[in-house]
Amino acid sequence: MSDSGHFIVFEGGEGSGKSTAAEAVAADLEAREIRVLLTREPGGTVAGEKVRRLLHEQLVPWAETFAFLAARAQLMDESIEPALASGATVVCDRFEASTFAYQGWGRGLPLDALKAANAHATKGRSPDLTIFLDLEPELGLRRKRGEREAVVTGAESLAFHRRVRDGYQAMFREARPGSWMMIDAALPADLVAKTAVDAVRKLLA
Amino acid sequence: MSDSGHFIVFEGGEGSGKSTAAEAVAADLEAREIRVLLTREPGGTVAGEKVRRLLHEQLVPWAETFAFLAARAQLMDESIEPALASGATVVCDRFEASTFAYQGWGRGLPLDALKAANAHATKGRSPDLTIFLDLEPELGLRRKRGEREAVVTGAESLAFHRRVRDGYQAMFREARPGSWMMIDAALPADLVAKTAVDAVRKLLA
Repeated sequence: MSDSGHFIVFEGGEGSGKSTAAEAVAADLEAREIRVLLTREPGGTVAGEKVRRLLHEQLVPWAETFAFLAARAQLMDESIEPALASGATVVCDRFEASTFAYQGWGRGLPLDALKAANAHATKGRSPDLTIFLDLEPELGLRRKRGEREAVVTGAESLAFHRRVRDGYQAMFREARPGSWMMIDAALPADLVAKTAVDAVRKLLA
Repeated sequence: MSDSGHFIVFEGGEGSGKSTAAEAVAADLEAREIRVLLTREPGGTVAGEKVRRLLHEQLVPWAETFAFLAARAQLMDESIEPALASGATVVCDRFEASTFAYQGWGRGLPLDALKAANAHATKGRSPDLTIFLDLEPELGLRRKRGEREAVVTGAESLAFHRRVRDGYQAMFREARPGSWMMIDAALPADLVAKTAVDAVRKLLA
């Protein structure tokens, strides 16, 4: 790639602390005067926020997938690519691995079809580092229950969330060395954040 | 297919009279006591109407494509498939050929990639008859200008709409015999509607 910025993504199930850890990493980068774009899927653009509202409908699996891919294609083109091209570091809360974990492993859509469709949204640009916050679904859902925003995936069965976790763990095992790291998200939030911050410092060193 | 209903789609550029002709066909079927579902893309479902609003944003070509495919997958599963399975005739204003004409020929996305993605939305179910209302883009856009609803494709250049028409004409030429028909939409609207009504009567005879 011709860009010089780094592309860092947080992944994991509901209530795993992705946004808290992403904010800690972005704050650390800013404190060290590294330009950073902190964003999230499927929001982050006007179109993405509309997709987020769309996801409150009961969508069939491929409709849900295409809605996420629409948001991703727009976020990639409008925000992530320009930021990377300008040399900024991008920290994103969820990206392509969420599609494979939720719509593939969770809903059972074929992974090869999801990967082919996803490549059109990302133009083949994968994250430089995916930080997977691994957590027992029971614990994550209990943490999440206190939160205001209803998320479509929050209504799913525990079995669904277990398949999602299996998917993330499989992607972690099969990932190119150095491209994924796993953090035990049952640890205290400040320790999770510190581990993520240290990993990103090392990546950018 | 195990369904017994017929699946009829109207296609064509802006202002070609698709919705008027679709309504005439649906009214004729109802008058002959044939059960009919009259619907349109990307609307027709709650999710589809939200996609319609999403399309007022400036979307990059693949984001636009995925938004339409999300609506199509939902419309197929929620409305079209159940109607066909019940033996009803489905009359739809736009379907997969719009994706190939607008996002393929118009925006230049690769047709093979669009076809592969589209097949997930339609589950491979193509219309039994596609009625293509062919019209000079200049004339169609002039007709359209009077209408209230701003459509995203209405803001495109004339060159874009010419490529869309080229695409429709190419699909018509390459279609399986009997699966597409072309009507000169410069003819008076009642004559266009009568031609479409006769074609559908023949298909269902």
